[in-house]
Amino acid sequence: MTKEEIKQKLTELNEKLAQVWDEILSASELVQAINEKRIDQRLFALYMLETYHYTRHNARNQALVGVRSFQAAPSYVKFCFDHAAEETGHELMALHDVKSMGLNIEEKDLPPALPATEVLIGYLYWISMQGNPLQRLGYSFWAENCYQYINPIINSLQEQLGLKSSQLTFFIAHSTIDEKHAEEVNNMIITHCKTEDDLKAVEKVMETSLRLTGQLLNAVYDVYSSLEKGSSGTYQFLNVLKKIK
Amino acid sequence: MTKEEIKQKLTELNEKLAQVWDEILSASELVQAINEKRIDQRLFALYMLETYHYTRHNARNQALVGVRSFQAAPSYVKFCFDHAAEETGHELMALHDVKSMGLNIEEKDLPPALPATEVLIGYLYWISMQGNPLQRLGYSFWAENCYQYINPIINSLQEQLGLKSSQLTFFIAHSTIDEKHAEEVNNMIITHCKTEDDLKAVEKVMETSLRLTGQLLNAVYDVYSSLEKGSSGTYQFLNVLKKIK
Amino acid sequence: MTKEEIKQKLTELNEKLAQVWDEILSASELVQAINEKRIDQRLFALYMLETYHYTRHNARNQALVGVRSFQAAPSYVKFCFDHAAEETGHELMALHDVKSMGLNIEEKDLPPALPATEVLIGYLYWISMQGNPLQRLGYSFWAENCYQYINPIINSLQEQLGLKSSQLTFFIAHSTIDEKHAEEVNNMIITHCKTEDDLKAVEKVMETSLRLTGQLLNAVYDVYSSLEKGSSGTYQFLNVLKKIK
Amino acid sequence: MTKEEIKQKLTELNEKLAQVWDEILSASELVQAINEKRIDQRLFALYMLETYHYTRHNARNQALVGVRSFQAAPSYVKFCFDHAAEETGHELMALHDVKSMGLNIEEKDLPPALPATEVLIGYLYWISMQGNPLQRLGYSFWAENCYQYINPIINSLQEQLGLKSSQLTFFIAHSTIDEKHAEEVNNMIITHCKTEDDLKAVEKVMETSLRLTGQLLNAVYDVYSSLEKGSSGTYQFLNVLKKIK
Repeated sequence: MTKEEIKQKLTELNEKLAQVWDEILSASELVQAINEKRIDQRLFALYMLETYHYTRHNARNQALVGVRSFQAAPSYVKFCFDHAAEETGHELMALHDVKSMGLNIEEKDLPPALPATEVLIGYLYWISMQGNPLQRLGYSFWAENCYQYINPIINSLQEQLGLKSSQLTFFIAHSTIDEKHAEEVNNMIITHCKTEDDLKAVEKVMETSLRLTGQLLNAVYDVYSSLEKGSSGTYQFLNVLKKIK
Repeated sequence: MTKEEIKQKLTELNEKLAQVWDEILSASELVQAINEKRIDQRLFALYMLETYHYTRHNARNQALVGVRSFQAAPSYVKFCFDHAAEETGHELMALHDVKSMGLNIEEKDLPPALPATEVLIGYLYWISMQGNPLQRLGYSFWAENCYQYINPIINSLQEQLGLKSSQLTFFIAHSTIDEKHAEEVNNMIITHCKTEDDLKAVEKVMETSLRLTGQLLNAVYDVYSSLEKGSSGTYQFLNVLKKIK
Repeated sequence: MTKEEIKQKLTELNEKLAQVWDEILSASELVQAINEKRIDQRLFALYMLETYHYTRHNARNQALVGVRSFQAAPSYVKFCFDHAAEETGHELMALHDVKSMGLNIEEKDLPPALPATEVLIGYLYWISMQGNPLQRLGYSFWAENCYQYINPIINSLQEQLGLKSSQLTFFIAHSTIDEKHAEEVNNMIITHCKTEDDLKAVEKVMETSLRLTGQLLNAVYDVYSSLEKGSSGTYQFLNVLKKIK
Repeated sequence: MTKEEIKQKLTELNEKLAQVWDEILSASELVQAINEKRIDQRLFALYMLETYHYTRHNARNQALVGVRSFQAAPSYVKFCFDHAAEETGHELMALHDVKSMGLNIEEKDLPPALPATEVLIGYLYWISMQGNPLQRLGYSFWAENCYQYINPIINSLQEQLGLKSSQLTFFIAHSTIDEKHAEEVNNMIITHCKTEDDLKAVEKVMETSLRLTGQLLNAVYDVYSSLEKGSSGTYQFLNVLKKIK
């Protein structure tokens, strides 16, 4: 494929992306609850806990692509390691944001990831450890470029929950870094994808990982709902945030 | 252990290192041949070919440490990925230096690594994929800081073989980068090694990987010797460099 | 925990299992279509194609548990390898059953796994490569013991589609082997699970992997529906089976 | 290549093997010490300790070949898992034999593997995790068929050290099992090796892993020598066996 054809494909990829986001957000009970202002800080805490979990693994599975791709172009391998280095430790921002709301919890005492989060994490390792080495770019393609879709939701959350910017370090730091990353990811696709199969692999991972993230949002909402209904269990410790809107 | 005790251990590590280098270099037929000026460009080409092979894997096994160390401190994981990114593609310098002598060979046509090189590569993956996550620092500890030991040999090689600096890009680039790396490696040891076991693991990998590198030098010399004796086989293509001293 | 407590837990695990199966089957459009006899051989072929894909990986991820669990009891490691050996190549039964319906397709030409199948495969590698080494028993626990839940569906399929037993080798071979396996899996749980955490890990993987299999069934039904609606694309080649009920 | 050509290659492989064994045994100080009856039970204990270490990993790296070889023939993958299952836990025989001499030591208190043993272990993982999936057969080819070379040494050891057969379970069990294994390994080579490259890969691993085993023998002898000279350190606990010839 020519560079022009690949750029054309990127446009189509963006259209596909808009459509999948639309499907996910319009069907999301979590988004509906935010829109209808039926939430409190527990929802944000729950989301940040899962963010902590998958973020811990993102740098690792990103680096894994470079580790196992013995035949990949050095500039792509270098991107994998550089990108991994830049994302390392970002789970601590998510943890900071959770704690900033007044939760007194240590890293080692966090509840384990929800099943939906484990499934996303497992999928990202799987597509990183085998298959087309370029396919993980499909995850970065949407993840580094999600702010146009989620900013309205984040802003609404922030306002409703009375959160200061210093309590949203994960999102604010990423929306800054990710602009640069999004451009790098585009460049990697344009430089290294050579065939239809490369682009199909990127698209498949883009859609699948975004839909799994949608299921993670659903799972977060389910836990929130059950907390609202007074359920006890693992997440009960979040009830100190109950009245904080 | 206190930081002071660890710094003391670093001094002991350096003493041990000097002693192992001394053993290796004084028993090395390759070094002896260089000292006695019984070499030609084939020897350097052979060494650079093996350097190409292990260097291709060094960034990868370095990154692997970060990938699999789920409990390691983020600053150490970040070091692993950063360091991997910086070393990525350096095998191309070794290839450049080989080709600069007039060998017309493509990457895909290079002979496979010698067994001694495979053994070194395999060992580095092994200590990177399991065991104490800090232990690979033992390899970096000597590798990033080897110039005091090998510079006299490189200089003698360069002079005897009439090589320009532009034909020694692998060594020259590394001796510059590695100064910074050596300091970072020291800092990582001082910051992250907490126990006697950590330091023992570092020392074990330092000594073992250096001795395996010594065996790689022996293997390179053996191939050179057999070429000198007129043997045919895989490395015959190097004979175009025969008369070039 | 005592053996008695663990046996009690197994009973609870079986109750939980019955409940998850009930949720999945009662919400499944695929099951509904079978019950209402609105299916043809394309549905079975689609399901067998996905079965081919995940089965190719089941032996491998089972063995991976033994490979990476350096501290596990030898008898558990041996179980992992024995069990893997017994499952190896069973994807060829699924392929045979697809081909027996009259599809002339070679292994290398099969369509890739659906995203839902990739997600299941990725999850099984993930829980096999890290975490509690016993947790993969949660997958085997339901998979080797699923016939009481799925036999009515298989029987109905077989009758509606006019399939001979020789066209159901995957199910028939497995329902025989799996009786023995199910007992072995129970024994492994009773012998090796020692703590609440072990059993929680087993339960989490049991539920998560079964729900992912439910999503695989949904995905199969979605493709079938779109074929019924005349969609073209990857699975069009199955339309030769269209009229065969 | 035809089956006939491959069988011819097997003959050549056996000739090569005889030659490498001859080189190793004739240069081995350990063998010389046995021949000159300058040994005591510490030597056997040291060898069994290292045998314990590499044997713990042999089943695992054997299974790894099947795990990662996604395109390999099912019958070869099954062989990998079956063979792994049969070798699992055999390190306990080595431990039994050490303890049978009167050493009161628990598995968890064993000294770590010597560097030479780590190098062998690492190499076997390396050739199992990447490269030609058939190449690990080169290790099995000599390891399952080593008794003609080592039996005279073992017999001499047994006699000199006054060991009963029940104290040589590792060797006796293996010499029985391995006859069957050796035949299976030959069959695997004949069935699955199709090209010169396959056979070269098998030969390379055969020779390299055997030479690394030779270095392991040297390392065992070095520790024994230093114990004889009265050195203190990790292996001092073996001195209770000092006078037992």
